[in-house]
Formats: sequence, C-alpha cells, structure tokens
Amino acid sequence: MSGSAAHKTDADAPVIGVLGGGQLARMLALAAIPLGLRVRCWDVSADAPAACVSELLVGDFGDEPTLARFAAGLLAATFEFENIPAGLARAIAARVATRPGPLALETGQDRIAEKTLLARLGVPVHAFACIDSMADLDAAIEGVVGLPCVIKTRRMGYDGKGQGVARTRDEAVALVHTLGGNGLIAERFVPFERELSMICVRGATGEVRTYPLIENRHAGGILRVSRAPAKGVSAQVGAAAANYAKRILDALEYVGVLTIEFFETREGLLANEIAPRVHNSGHWTIEGAVTSQFENHVRAVAGLPLGACDARESSAMVNLIGEIPPREAVLAIPGARLHLYDKPPRPGRKVGHVTITADACADLDAAVEAVRKLPGATG
Amino acid sequence: MSGSAAHKTDADAPVIGVLGGGQLARMLALAAIPLGLRVRCWDVSADAPAACVSELLVGDFGDEPTLARFAAGLLAATFEFENIPAGLARAIAARVATRPGPLALETGQDRIAEKTLLARLGVPVHAFACIDSMADLDAAIEGVVGLPCVIKTRRMGYDGKGQGVARTRDEAVALVHTLGGNGLIAERFVPFERELSMICVRGATGEVRTYPLIENRHAGGILRVSRAPAKGVSAQVGAAAANYAKRILDALEYVGVLTIEFFETREGLLANEIAPRVHNSGHWTIEGAVTSQFENHVRAVAGLPLGACDARESSAMVNLIGEIPPREAVLAIPGARLHLYDKPPRPGRKVGHVTITADACADLDAAVEAVRKLPGATG
Repeated sequence: MSGSAAHKTDADAPVIGVLGGGQLARMLALAAIPLGLRVRCWDVSADAPAACVSELLVGDFGDEPTLARFAAGLLAATFEFENIPAGLARAIAARVATRPGPLALETGQDRIAEKTLLARLGVPVHAFACIDSMADLDAAIEGVVGLPCVIKTRRMGYDGKGQGVARTRDEAVALVHTLGGNGLIAERFVPFERELSMICVRGATGEVRTYPLIENRHAGGILRVSRAPAKGVSAQVGAAAANYAKRILDALEYVGVLTIEFFETREGLLANEIAPRVHNSGHWTIEGAVTSQFENHVRAVAGLPLGACDARESSAMVNLIGEIPPREAVLAIPGARLHLYDKPPRPGRKVGHVTITADACADLDAAVEAVRKLPGATG
Repeated sequence: MSGSAAHKTDADAPVIGVLGGGQLARMLALAAIPLGLRVRCWDVSADAPAACVSELLVGDFGDEPTLARFAAGLLAATFEFENIPAGLARAIAARVATRPGPLALETGQDRIAEKTLLARLGVPVHAFACIDSMADLDAAIEGVVGLPCVIKTRRMGYDGKGQGVARTRDEAVALVHTLGGNGLIAERFVPFERELSMICVRGATGEVRTYPLIENRHAGGILRVSRAPAKGVSAQVGAAAANYAKRILDALEYVGVLTIEFFETREGLLANEIAPRVHNSGHWTIEGAVTSQFENHVRAVAGLPLGACDARESSAMVNLIGEIPPREAVLAIPGARLHLYDKPPRPGRKVGHVTITADACADLDAAVEAVRKLPGATG
C-alpha cells in the first residue's frame, strides 16, 4: 500500500466527540492522544485548528447526517464552546453519553439561570434582575441593582460583547434599547480589585478537584494575561472558591472541566459567570500544573481517574491576539513556550498564546514584559 | 463542503519530514504542532503510531515516487531511527536540508567509525578492535581487549541484539561465528556501576545545550526505567559529559538531538554508543524538563532557537513493554503521566511509557514501585 493516509482509523482507540474544532478542541486532542484516545470534532469549517490532530467532520450544526456520523461509536461527547443550540445538545445526549450534560450547558447559556443557581447555592453574586421591559428596568434600578449598573444580554455574550455600564437612568434606557429591549439582565455595579478565575473538574464518579485561583487581566474585553497561582490570595479565599466550585459542580451533576470567573471586591469574591468548558485562563496548566485542564477534561469525559491540579510553578500566560509574532522572536525569550492555533490572524482574534513558568526564567515578571513586547501580545 | 477531512493542508505551516512513523515521530509531531509546524512521516506501515498526528506517506524506503513526495516542500528532514540506508539518507539530503546530516547518521551506524571518532575527540571509550577474521580476534584478545570481552556486530544492533560477552577464547570464537564471522567489533569488558545517558542538542547556529545525566536500568537488553537527573553524579562528571557532548556535536556539525550512552565505571565515564536521534531515555523530558527532547529536536531541525534543558523536577520514566496496562490503573497512581503509542502489544515491544515527576507525588520511589506493578512495567 502506498499513499498519503487520511486520519488513521484505529478500531481500538476510544473516541471522544468534541462539538467545535477550534483551539480548545485542538488542545483537548493533543492531551487525548498520549492517553491512547482519539478526538472526533464537528465544525462548520474544514480549516478548523483541530483538523491536524483529530478526525474532523465538517457540516452545519443542524445537519442530521453529520450528527449521526458524529455520534457513531463515540465513548462520550463534549463541547468546546457553550453556545450550543439546546436542541442539538439534547440530540447528541440522546445518542451518546454527553459530558457535561445539557443541564449544565443550558444553565451556562442563560445569565439569569446561572445567577439564580449560584444564589441558590450560596455562591455570592452581584444583585441582579431580569430586564424584559422598561418597567423591569425601572424596578431593577430602584429596588435591586441601583446606579451605576451593568446591563447584559442574557445569552450569547462573550469577550465583553453584548454588555455595557450605565451611570444614569437615561444611559440605562439607551443601553437597553441598544441591546434589543428584552432578554437582558441588569446587575449591580461593584467596583472590583481584579478578576480571578478558578478551573475545576468533576469526574464521572463525582470526584472534584480544583486548580488554584488565577488572576486575569483584560483589555478591550479580551483576556490578555493570566497568572497562576494568583498572588495575594489568602487561604480562606482560596478555600471559599474551591468550596463554591464543588457546590456548583455537584448541583449540575457536572462531568468535565468548568470555569468560574470571580470578581475580587472589598466584600470578597463575587461569582461573575461560569463557563462549562476548558477556558483561556487555564492554558497555563499545560506547563504550569501537574495535569493540564485539557487532560483532566479528557480524563473526566472518558470516565478516567482525575489528575492532580497542583501548580508546579508560578506561571503566566499571554494571549496572542490579531497577529502572530515570528516563532524565532518568541522562542528566543528564555522560558517562553509557544502555542499557535493555525488560525489566520484577524483583528481581535486569538491566534495563540505563550506560557512562561517561573522555573524556566530568571525573573517571571521580566519574562512577561519581554513577551508583551511581541506583536499580538501588546494589548 | 462536508465529509471527514484528511490531514489539513495548511500552506502556511512549515513541514518537517521524519523518516519513520513510530512513537518517536509521534512525539516529535506532538511537540511540533503547538509551534505551528507540521510533520510529514514516511513509514512502511499505514498503522504507524504517528498516523494520527502527521501526514503519513506509506511506502518502501527504496521507493522513488514516495521519496519525491516526502521531500516536496519540506522545511527540513530528519529521522526517528538511525539504521537508514546510507543511499536513502544522501538522496534525501540532496533534495532538502537534512538534520542531522548523513555524516552523523553514517557514523552512528558503524560502531567502529563511532568509537574511532570518540577516541579521536578524547572521549573515553572501551579499548576496541575490528574483527573481520579469527586472526583479528586473536590479535584483539592478546593485544587490545583481553578477556572477558564483548563482541558486537558493527551495524544494526539495538536493544541488546547482535552482541554477547565471551569469557574465554573458545567462547569468543563461537560468538564470532554466531554473529557472522566478520563486520564485528570486540571491546574490552569493563565492569560498570550503572548506565548513564546524556541527551544533548545542537542548533542550526551551532548553539549546544545538554540535559542532565540520566540513569538507565535495563532488563533483557531493553530499557526499563530511567531516572533524571541521575543521583550521585558529581559536578565534575556532569561537566565532563557535557564537554564530551559538545565535542561530538561540533565534530559532526550536528543539528538536532543526539544521545550518548555512558557506562559509569571506577575509572569514570566510558562512552558506549551514540544515537543520532531523540531517545527512549529522554522521554522524561516531556514533563520533567523545561523543554522536551522532542521540542528541542524540532526547534533545531526547523532552525529555531533552542529551549532550556534544565530538569524541572526529579523524574522517573518506566517503559511499558509487551503489554498495555488499563488506563484506569495507570491514571489512578497519583502523579503518573501516561503515554501510549497506539501499537498492538507483542512480546518485547515498547507500547508506551509512564512518567512521574517528584512534584506530582509524595514519594517518587514509591510511585515508581506502584507503576512497576502494572502489566507491561514489571520487567
């Protein structure tokens, strides 16, 4: 036999299905392969970043034949993004074990359902109210959230899109109009010191593990730099976050990695949102933790024992956005670890990231500064 | 477009060609992909372990059309095994930058050429002699190597095959007959404390970096356990080994990773052999070093700056041979990192390895013992 082989079909390797074939699916596949597992992705684009490490099915997400091929013979299915049409998530779950399940996805897709759950579990959240009309807005401002307040779409927001801050009632009215007039949420504006996130994972047997809290810096609504473990976090705050994580994971009967974004305020942590998936703020775990978020998600989805979530070292992750720096320039920085996603650069698009661990450089802060001078890393 | 995509063809991603598609090629590809590079392998089998992470060309190594397709558009070519027919290595080198070059390959293929080079460079080696006849054998025993001695084939030996120890002249005569009567090398038998190896790398600009010395334990001629950094190595011995490595790399104008096997004796290190490639004894570098041997080989072959070779932690690597343990059993051992190769198990065949780093377990020795109880790890 001679010829360029397509993706190897090995009947023995269990296959995990991933809806989406972006960089998260790519890194999931890179973590799955050494475990002797395979990933099958379903994406709308044949150029998806996961194409080189997975069996890629290309088709619209409503396409029935693609659904049948996607689900065929899978060990389990999972997702690399949360804005999955609920019908599709349920259709997949009807065919194959789906981790996390549709309940977690649906909760994460709706800011009201999410905040309601968090509040019910005793996880501190911003005061919030549903906004489906101007009457709702007035009631919310007067009775619940006050001014200034934050107004967001309940669904489909990401990277700071679909939201804004209103300082006056007039601004709030204008913002509600801009965002469509209904299907919104108003939240109390609470000044915060910084954003922290926690990556946590629950296994198929209910075992829960949490990574240390991460400090995240955004610009233009996009994550730019994460550092882990976050500095200046007391043992009590870390333990509280881990406890919140366990409550959320257990309540959702969650299997896989989940991310919680917190605001650190003078009154303590406020949970801002949850993402039912591996997360950009956890990319440092590839080099910086004993087990990466990608491997632990794969382990959980495949029903395998979880790995330790301890940080091996202090780490920093810098996103590459809109521009790909020359490989030579990145790799010439001592300790810099390059992760490119094979995505053509466009303004605002995440095309890669660079991780630095403290053991690989003389001075982590200085190394981060050097990375931040690279094209794509300066935002 | 719909359908199961073959390996993505991304015109922008530079491609490195690897002759061979086994586990070393697989781990090279896993290291290349995050750097935005791709690997094209050439193997005789469509089931090669690298199939799921590379563009795999399947064909006999003498096949001209496959050679043309292999070399087309490559950034550079390299090898995952050293027993490449010299004509093929030169044919590839005539078409594309080949790293390491044919000189290094040819030297590494012939134990006499190798020992002669090492001796010329002042790297201590066992006394040795060419054996092409019984007269050679008698002269060697009387004048050079003495008894007992080790007799090996000059070429194609691996994993303890093609060699033996003779305690008497009669045993030596019988061994020479068994090994074919000529094309052999006799070496002085020197009792050794243990085998050490050093992984080293030279970049396209001549930069040299060395990993710390590794301690290797064999059984049945096959590597079973490696530990790094090797315990009880003085600074002088480590520096001497690094100095030998630099001499060898420079003399061969080497580009890529090279492995030197040493015997540690009462008189110091004796270089036993060199392997012009990434090496089983360096698998711990994936988790245990700042930059893995695979990434550094890819960086060198692609002409990129090298990464730091420092050990992050004390590590141990245990080979899985002839049998694949259940994933659950491996991953339930705290800190165990599993690497399977997608190879059907056969007696004596390397099918995977497990790495443990000291930061991931309470007691590295105890963790190694737990791993060594697994099927495939007990030899």
